[in-house]
Amino acid sequence: MGTKGKVIKCKAAVAWEANKPLSIEEVEVAPPKAHEVRIQIIATTLCHTDAHMIHPQYEGAFFPVILGHEAAGIVESVGPEVTNFKPGDKVIPLYMPQCGKCKFCLSPHTNFCGKLRNFRNPFDDQKLMEDKSSRFTCKEKPIYHFMGTSTFSQYTVVSDTNLVKVDDDANLERVCLLGCAFSTGYGAVVNVAKVTPGSTCAIFGLGGVGFAAVIGCKLAGASRIIAIDIKSEKFARAKALGATDCLNPGDLDKPIQEVIVEITNGGVDFTFECVGGAKVMRAAMDSITVGGGLCTVIGVNVGDNGLNISAMELLMGRTLTGTSFGGWKGMESVPKLAADYKNKKFNLDALVSHTLPFDKISEAFDLMYQGKSIRTILLF
Amino acid sequence: MGTKGKVIKCKAAVAWEANKPLSIEEVEVAPPKAHEVRIQIIATTLCHTDAHMIHPQYEGAFFPVILGHEAAGIVESVGPEVTNFKPGDKVIPLYMPQCGKCKFCLSPHTNFCGKLRNFRNPFDDQKLMEDKSSRFTCKEKPIYHFMGTSTFSQYTVVSDTNLVKVDDDANLERVCLLGCAFSTGYGAVVNVAKVTPGSTCAIFGLGGVGFAAVIGCKLAGASRIIAIDIKSEKFARAKALGATDCLNPGDLDKPIQEVIVEITNGGVDFTFECVGGAKVMRAAMDSITVGGGLCTVIGVNVGDNGLNISAMELLMGRTLTGTSFGGWKGMESVPKLAADYKNKKFNLDALVSHTLPFDKISEAFDLMYQGKSIRTILLF
Repeated sequence: MGTKGKVIKCKAAVAWEANKPLSIEEVEVAPPKAHEVRIQIIATTLCHTDAHMIHPQYEGAFFPVILGHEAAGIVESVGPEVTNFKPGDKVIPLYMPQCGKCKFCLSPHTNFCGKLRNFRNPFDDQKLMEDKSSRFTCKEKPIYHFMGTSTFSQYTVVSDTNLVKVDDDANLERVCLLGCAFSTGYGAVVNVAKVTPGSTCAIFGLGGVGFAAVIGCKLAGASRIIAIDIKSEKFARAKALGATDCLNPGDLDKPIQEVIVEITNGGVDFTFECVGGAKVMRAAMDSITVGGGLCTVIGVNVGDNGLNISAMELLMGRTLTGTSFGGWKGMESVPKLAADYKNKKFNLDALVSHTLPFDKISEAFDLMYQGKSIRTILLF
Repeated sequence: MGTKGKVIKCKAAVAWEANKPLSIEEVEVAPPKAHEVRIQIIATTLCHTDAHMIHPQYEGAFFPVILGHEAAGIVESVGPEVTNFKPGDKVIPLYMPQCGKCKFCLSPHTNFCGKLRNFRNPFDDQKLMEDKSSRFTCKEKPIYHFMGTSTFSQYTVVSDTNLVKVDDDANLERVCLLGCAFSTGYGAVVNVAKVTPGSTCAIFGLGGVGFAAVIGCKLAGASRIIAIDIKSEKFARAKALGATDCLNPGDLDKPIQEVIVEITNGGVDFTFECVGGAKVMRAAMDSITVGGGLCTVIGVNVGDNGLNISAMELLMGRTLTGTSFGGWKGMESVPKLAADYKNKKFNLDALVSHTLPFDKISEAFDLMYQGKSIRTILLF
């Protein structure tokens, strides 16, 4: 008696409204429709992007919703017309879809997909399945999906354009980090900024993304890797991964960007903004050198107006860019990243500070808010 | 009886204070010191960068000053230790110095030079010669240089790091445009943005820089070149140079960026902001596509706070950059551009709308302010 074709009742964390802890509920997960896949989530983590949705100042929020976008699981069943997945496959949900047909998917230069149409609030695009309905129900109410993934549920349904298979021997408790944090930070360095050997880099924010950026800078051969965080207890880990300098803005008597410009004689070649918010964006922009400096923004700003930038800053030869999911096209890249992990090109353990049962998701959020965790792996 | 070693009395346009027309005066031009060259200016043009200095809201201004940075002339005499120039050489002053020794000059990736130290107000660096004195005197007052060039004077003194020789048969009334407008707009396209064949482009502002960008986009093989200006009388010239669409924001019932996004099904690959100011920066940024769009800022904003940019705009795969002098290292590139002009790769006539005697410089400024001129060539 399989579950295929039936509604599954399972555990999920539901966000009923802004500024409230998630609530562990029993939800109903409908079977997958055409081009959809139902997955049993084995391990999920959380990041500030999930937290943004419940931030009281985030304007694009929708409720009730099942958050979560960084996870790994096993295919439970597939809907009609699904050809790339079968029950039992180990998979990683992809919040950046890849339809494979649009001009973006056909271009080698971007990992964007034309399925995202609402450019100002991309979350809005994937709050429902393609037929504009939800597969989740709780207390007889339909529950929104999030980023096409909704991994804070023991079972979830995703489009077959939002999923990638990994090897049968993949360690789901680690490769779940390829669903966002690692791929985003590492890809920002190697795909987007294309850090060059001998260059100088500064990484703002030592969360999962920031540590992945440190790993990327080290592998790219940067000669100087400046890691910045307001929690000095993260610095030992950063140094172990290759950071040459660690700076805590709270310990300095002048703005962090002034210190970076001073110690690098004019600023670094590359900065990575892995925090979010106008103040850190400003610091990351100010820390790059004239004549070629590149600032890559990865964090999202909520509750402020972003960065105010004058033409002269740009005319002096500075560039500002940003990335989602590190520029990777998920379908072809995630399996390669998983292979690189298996071959010990990089170590995902470095990003994991805690492992908790899924029921303790609120504790995991608190650890993140307090800056005490890097990534917390939640296990069902 | 040559003039070498002697003070030269000649005509110049002096800016005595902000928000006033330049005043034609007799000035004294001291002989060049070590590593300096005195030039007789034959043809000079003007651009908004000159106008910024006398703009009442420009905060970095200094007076009295001789403006002008786009010109061509003939070497009158050289100071000690000058090895690359001799009297009679046809030359173009370079406002972007090239010391040849600093890390920027040694890098193939930037045309910046370490001689510019004041990154927030680069004009400040070159208001005096390297010994911190001026070569100009008027009414017994020292007069500031501007951008290391001060071409609004029949004779000027420049550092030998701010000068490039062109062929003896160069047409100074045209190659003067290589000193700024043409090189800036054309280089923004081919060096900085690196416009690709078949791509879509939009150029905001049809002055000398904007027309040069149109020429660059056409030569780069862009499939669509959208030219934007508030003066529709410039459109025939733009179309002759290769523009496929011409839009006047004043004729539209919605913001220009919305129209561009509509007619290009999501925005163009490349925009070039050749006007200056927060509003046009915003339009140029909004007009690029997600998933790879690049906005290159060339104009300077004065009297506003520049562009306010949210992280999400960048995370959707948009990049914002800027350029001075089109990314060209002047010493090696200007002679090549002059050769390309001689070989009819492009036609500089297209940038010239008026030719006037130097004494009519105020009329030339008025034509520029009114948007009636492209470039006005002033002849001594």
